[in-house]
Amino acid sequence: MNTRHLTQLDRDDALKLLAGVGFGRIVFTEHALPAIRPINHVIDDGDVIIRSHAGAALNSSVNTVVAYEADDIDPLTHTGWSVIVTGIARAVTDPDAITRYERILRPWVDHAMDRVLRIHPEFVTGFTLTDGTEGRLPAE
Amino acid sequence: MNTRHLTQLDRDDALKLLAGVGFGRIVFTEHALPAIRPINHVIDDGDVIIRSHAGAALNSSVNTVVAYEADDIDPLTHTGWSVIVTGIARAVTDPDAITRYERILRPWVDHAMDRVLRIHPEFVTGFTLTDGTEGRLPAE
Repeated sequence: MNTRHLTQLDRDDALKLLAGVGFGRIVFTEHALPAIRPINHVIDDGDVIIRSHAGAALNSSVNTVVAYEADDIDPLTHTGWSVIVTGIARAVTDPDAITRYERILRPWVDHAMDRVLRIHPEFVTGFTLTDGTEGRLPAE
Repeated sequence: MNTRHLTQLDRDDALKLLAGVGFGRIVFTEHALPAIRPINHVIDDGDVIIRSHAGAALNSSVNTVVAYEADDIDPLTHTGWSVIVTGIARAVTDPDAITRYERILRPWVDHAMDRVLRIHPEFVTGFTLTDGTEGRLPAE
Protein backbone atom coordinates (compact mmCIF):
# COMPACT_ATOMS: atom_id res chain seq x y z
CA MET A 1 0.00 0.00 0.00
CA ASN A 2 1.33 3.45 -0.86
CA THR A 3 1.83 5.83 1.99
CA ARG A 4 -0.90 8.32 2.68
CA HIS A 5 -0.85 12.05 2.24
CA LEU A 6 -1.43 14.02 5.40
CA THR A 7 -3.11 17.39 4.99
CA GLN A 8 -3.69 19.75 7.91
CA LEU A 9 -7.26 20.97 8.35
CA ASP A 10 -8.14 24.54 9.23
CA ARG A 11 -10.30 25.23 12.27
CA ASP A 12 -13.61 25.56 10.43
CA ASP A 13 -13.19 22.36 8.43
CA ALA A 14 -12.03 20.48 11.53
CA LEU A 15 -15.06 21.58 13.57
CA LYS A 16 -17.39 20.66 10.70
CA LEU A 17 -16.02 17.12 10.67
CA LEU A 18 -16.37 16.89 14.46
CA ALA A 19 -19.97 18.10 14.25
CA GLY A 20 -20.71 15.42 11.65
CA VAL A 21 -20.05 12.51 14.00
CA GLY A 22 -21.73 11.55 17.25
CA PHE A 23 -18.90 10.41 19.43
CA GLY A 24 -15.25 10.85 20.24
CA ARG A 25 -12.84 10.50 23.14
CA ILE A 26 -12.30 12.83 26.06
CA VAL A 27 -8.69 13.03 27.24
CA PHE A 28 -7.95 14.25 30.74
CA THR A 29 -5.71 13.74 33.73
CA GLU A 30 -6.70 11.35 36.51
CA HIS A 31 -4.47 11.05 39.55
CA ALA A 32 -1.74 12.76 37.51
CA LEU A 33 -1.99 10.05 34.80
CA PRO A 34 -3.26 10.45 31.25
CA ALA A 35 -6.80 9.11 30.90
CA ILE A 36 -9.19 8.69 27.99
CA ARG A 37 -12.83 7.68 27.65
CA PRO A 38 -15.02 7.20 24.57
CA ILE A 39 -18.12 9.37 24.88
CA ASN A 40 -20.86 10.85 22.71
CA HIS A 41 -21.06 14.55 21.99
CA VAL A 42 -22.95 17.30 20.27
CA ILE A 43 -21.42 20.50 18.92
CA ASP A 44 -23.29 23.65 19.93
CA ASP A 45 -22.19 27.10 18.82
CA GLY A 46 -18.71 25.71 18.16
CA ASP A 47 -18.36 24.14 21.61
CA VAL A 48 -18.16 20.41 22.39
CA ILE A 49 -20.95 19.32 24.76
CA ILE A 50 -20.70 16.03 26.67
CA ARG A 51 -22.34 14.48 29.74
CA SER A 52 -20.74 12.68 32.62
CA HIS A 53 -22.32 10.39 35.17
CA ALA A 54 -22.11 10.48 38.94
CA GLY A 55 -18.83 9.11 40.19
CA ALA A 56 -17.14 9.26 36.77
CA ALA A 57 -13.41 9.94 36.77
CA LEU A 58 -14.22 12.55 34.16
CA ASN A 59 -15.78 14.76 36.83
CA SER A 60 -12.32 15.50 38.15
CA SER A 61 -11.60 17.25 34.85
CA VAL A 62 -14.07 20.09 35.42
CA ASN A 63 -12.24 23.43 35.17
CA THR A 64 -9.10 21.74 33.84
CA VAL A 65 -7.70 21.60 30.32
CA VAL A 66 -8.86 18.56 28.38
CA ALA A 67 -8.49 17.31 24.83
CA TYR A 68 -11.33 15.91 22.76
CA GLU A 69 -10.62 13.74 19.75
CA ALA A 70 -12.75 12.19 17.05
CA ASP A 71 -11.62 10.39 13.95
CA ASP A 72 -12.85 8.28 11.10
CA ILE A 73 -9.98 6.29 9.68
CA ASP A 74 -10.60 3.30 7.44
CA PRO A 75 -8.75 0.33 8.94
CA LEU A 76 -8.04 -1.13 5.51
CA THR A 77 -7.19 1.87 3.37
CA HIS A 78 -5.80 4.11 6.16
CA THR A 79 -7.63 7.08 4.68
CA GLY A 80 -9.82 9.36 6.74
CA TRP A 81 -9.48 12.17 9.24
CA SER A 82 -8.81 13.07 12.85
CA VAL A 83 -9.72 16.21 14.76
CA ILE A 84 -8.42 17.25 18.17
CA VAL A 85 -9.84 20.09 20.24
CA THR A 86 -8.13 21.39 23.38
CA GLY A 87 -9.84 23.61 25.93
CA ILE A 88 -11.12 23.92 29.48
CA ALA A 89 -14.03 21.67 30.50
CA ARG A 90 -16.68 23.80 32.23
CA ALA A 91 -19.84 22.56 33.92
CA VAL A 92 -22.98 23.92 32.25
CA THR A 93 -25.04 25.57 34.99
CA ASP A 94 -27.94 27.20 33.15
CA PRO A 95 -31.01 25.00 33.85
CA ASP A 96 -32.59 25.62 30.44
CA ALA A 97 -29.36 24.73 28.66
CA ILE A 98 -28.98 21.59 30.78
CA THR A 99 -32.54 20.51 29.93
CA ARG A 100 -31.94 21.10 26.25
CA TYR A 101 -28.65 19.21 26.19
CA GLU A 102 -30.09 16.33 28.20
CA ARG A 103 -32.76 15.96 25.55
CA ILE A 104 -30.44 15.89 22.55
CA LEU A 105 -27.52 14.07 24.16
CA ARG A 106 -28.66 10.64 25.30
CA PRO A 107 -26.19 8.50 27.24
CA TRP A 108 -25.43 5.13 25.66
CA VAL A 109 -25.56 3.37 28.99
CA ASP A 110 -28.28 3.67 31.60
CA HIS A 111 -26.19 5.57 34.14
CA ALA A 112 -27.53 8.36 36.30
CA MET A 113 -25.97 11.33 34.53
CA ASP A 114 -25.25 14.30 36.69
CA ARG A 115 -23.36 16.90 34.71
CA VAL A 116 -23.26 18.53 31.34
CA LEU A 117 -19.80 19.75 30.36
CA ARG A 118 -18.92 22.32 27.72
CA ILE A 119 -15.47 22.46 26.11
CA HIS A 120 -14.78 25.70 24.28
CA PRO A 121 -12.02 24.92 21.76
CA GLU A 122 -8.94 27.02 22.45
CA PHE A 123 -6.89 24.99 19.98
CA VAL A 124 -8.25 22.98 17.08
CA THR A 125 -6.02 20.72 15.03
CA GLY A 126 -6.90 18.11 12.49
CA PHE A 127 -5.73 16.29 9.43
CA THR A 128 -6.97 14.21 6.56
CA LEU A 129 -5.24 11.13 5.23
CA THR A 130 -5.78 10.59 1.52
CA ASP A 131 -4.36 8.10 -0.92
CA GLY A 132 -2.90 10.82 -3.08
CA THR A 133 -4.59 9.64 -6.26
CA GLU A 134 -7.18 12.43 -6.39
CA GLY A 135 -6.87 14.34 -9.60
CA ARG A 136 -4.48 11.87 -11.17
CA LEU A 137 -5.27 10.19 -14.43
CA PRO A 138 -6.09 6.49 -14.04
CA ALA A 139 -3.04 5.50 -16.08
CA GLU A 140 -0.70 7.51 -13.90
CA MET B 1 -33.01 3.32 20.88
CA ASN B 2 -32.68 1.28 24.07
CA THR B 3 -29.70 2.01 26.26
CA ARG B 4 -26.70 -0.28 25.92
CA HIS B 5 -25.34 -2.75 28.42
CA LEU B 6 -21.81 -2.05 29.53
CA THR B 7 -19.74 -5.09 30.50
CA GLN B 8 -16.20 -4.79 31.84
CA LEU B 9 -13.57 -6.86 30.03
CA ASP B 10 -10.85 -8.77 31.81
CA ARG B 11 -7.23 -8.15 30.88
CA ASP B 12 -6.85 -11.09 28.50
CA ASP B 13 -10.00 -10.36 26.54
CA ALA B 14 -9.14 -6.66 26.37
CA LEU B 15 -5.65 -7.34 25.01
CA LYS B 16 -7.07 -9.78 22.45
CA LEU B 17 -9.38 -7.10 21.10
CA LEU B 18 -6.51 -4.61 20.97
CA ALA B 19 -4.37 -7.12 19.07
CA GLY B 20 -7.17 -7.62 16.57
CA VAL B 21 -7.09 -4.05 15.27
CA GLY B 22 -4.31 -2.10 13.62
CA PHE B 23 -4.59 1.35 15.12
CA GLY B 24 -5.55 3.30 18.18
CA ARG B 25 -4.73 6.55 19.94
CA ILE B 26 -1.74 7.37 22.10
CA VAL B 27 -2.52 9.70 25.00
CA PHE B 28 0.30 11.64 26.61
CA THR B 29 1.18 14.98 28.15
CA GLU B 30 2.62 17.78 26.03
CA HIS B 31 3.68 21.02 27.71
CA ALA B 32 1.63 19.88 30.73
CA LEU B 33 -1.51 19.58 28.55
CA PRO B 34 -3.36 16.40 27.62
CA ALA B 35 -2.51 15.32 24.07
CA ILE B 36 -3.72 12.52 21.80
CA ARG B 37 -2.67 11.22 18.38
CA PRO B 38 -4.12 8.44 16.23
CA ILE B 39 -1.41 5.92 15.39
CA ASN B 40 -1.02 2.35 14.19
CA HIS B 41 0.26 -0.41 16.46
CA VAL B 42 1.16 -4.04 16.76
CA ILE B 43 0.90 -6.09 19.92
CA ASP B 44 4.01 -8.12 20.70
CA ASP B 45 4.24 -10.36 23.73
CA GLY B 46 1.43 -8.40 25.37
CA ASP B 47 3.10 -5.01 24.81
CA VAL B 48 1.87 -2.23 22.54
CA ILE B 49 4.47 -1.29 19.92
CA ILE B 50 4.24 2.01 18.05
CA ARG B 51 6.61 4.19 16.02
CA SER B 52 7.15 7.92 16.21
CA HIS B 53 8.75 10.21 13.70
CA ALA B 54 11.49 12.76 14.16
CA GLY B 55 10.20 15.91 15.79
CA ALA B 56 6.92 14.35 16.89
CA ALA B 57 5.44 15.68 20.13
CA LEU B 58 5.08 12.04 21.09
CA ASN B 59 8.85 11.79 21.57
CA SER B 60 8.50 13.83 24.74
CA SER B 61 6.49 10.93 26.19
CA VAL B 62 9.43 8.51 26.29
CA ASN B 63 9.88 7.23 29.86
CA THR B 64 6.61 8.80 30.96
CA VAL B 65 3.24 7.18 31.66
CA VAL B 66 0.97 7.15 28.64
CA ALA B 67 -2.43 5.69 27.83
CA TYR B 68 -3.24 3.82 24.64
CA GLU B 69 -6.82 3.41 23.51
CA ALA B 70 -8.52 1.54 20.71
CA ASP B 71 -12.19 1.07 20.13
CA ASP B 72 -14.70 -0.15 17.61
CA ILE B 73 -18.06 1.41 18.33
CA ASP B 74 -20.80 1.38 15.73
CA PRO B 75 -21.96 4.98 15.23
CA LEU B 76 -25.53 3.89 14.55
CA THR B 77 -26.15 1.06 17.03
CA HIS B 78 -23.71 2.25 19.75
CA THR B 79 -22.55 -1.32 20.25
CA GLY B 80 -18.91 -2.29 20.29
CA TRP B 81 -15.93 -2.12 22.59
CA SER B 82 -13.14 0.06 23.92
CA VAL B 83 -9.83 -0.95 25.48
CA ILE B 84 -7.45 1.32 27.38
CA VAL B 85 -3.90 0.38 28.35
CA THR B 86 -1.80 2.49 30.72
CA GLY B 87 1.95 2.09 31.11
CA ILE B 88 5.34 3.68 30.60
CA ALA B 89 6.48 4.33 27.01
CA ARG B 90 10.03 3.02 26.59
CA ALA B 91 12.25 3.42 23.54
CA VAL B 92 13.16 0.06 21.99
CA THR B 93 16.95 -0.02 21.77
CA ASP B 94 17.74 -3.55 20.54
CA PRO B 95 18.72 -3.20 16.84
CA ASP B 96 17.24 -6.57 15.84
CA ALA B 97 13.96 -5.75 17.52
CA ILE B 98 13.89 -2.32 15.87
CA THR B 99 14.48 -3.88 12.45
CA ARG B 100 11.71 -6.41 13.02
CA TYR B 101 9.20 -3.82 14.22
CA GLU B 102 10.07 -1.46 11.38
CA ARG B 103 9.23 -4.25 8.95
CA ILE B 104 5.83 -5.12 10.43
CA LEU B 105 4.77 -1.64 11.50
CA ARG B 106 4.59 0.58 8.44
CA PRO B 107 3.86 4.27 8.97
CA TRP B 108 0.78 5.55 7.18
CA VAL B 109 2.50 8.74 6.16
CA ASP B 110 5.89 9.05 4.53
CA HIS B 111 7.63 10.60 7.53
CA ALA B 112 11.17 9.77 8.55
CA MET B 113 10.46 7.57 11.56
CA ASP B 114 13.09 7.57 14.24
CA ARG B 115 11.92 5.62 17.21
CA VAL B 116 10.12 2.48 18.13
CA LEU B 117 8.26 2.70 21.44
CA ARG B 118 7.06 -0.14 23.63
CA ILE B 119 4.28 0.29 26.16
CA HIS B 120 4.07 -2.50 28.70
CA PRO B 121 0.52 -2.44 30.05
CA GLU B 122 0.51 -1.81 33.78
CA PHE B 123 -3.25 -1.31 33.79
CA VAL B 124 -5.68 -2.69 31.23
CA THR B 125 -9.33 -1.70 31.25
CA GLY B 126 -12.01 -2.27 28.68
CA PHE B 127 -15.69 -2.68 28.13
CA THR B 128 -18.17 -3.96 25.61
CA LEU B 129 -21.42 -2.23 24.75
CA THR B 130 -24.16 -4.64 23.74
CA ASP B 131 -27.81 -4.15 22.94
CA GLY B 132 -28.87 -6.49 25.70
CA THR B 133 -30.93 -8.74 23.46
CA GLU B 134 -28.44 -11.63 23.35
CA GLY B 135 -30.06 -14.79 24.57
CA ARG B 136 -33.54 -13.36 24.57
CA LEU B 137 -36.31 -14.96 22.61
CA PRO B 138 -37.34 -12.91 19.57
CA ALA B 139 -40.82 -12.36 20.98
CA GLU B 140 -39.52 -11.07 24.27
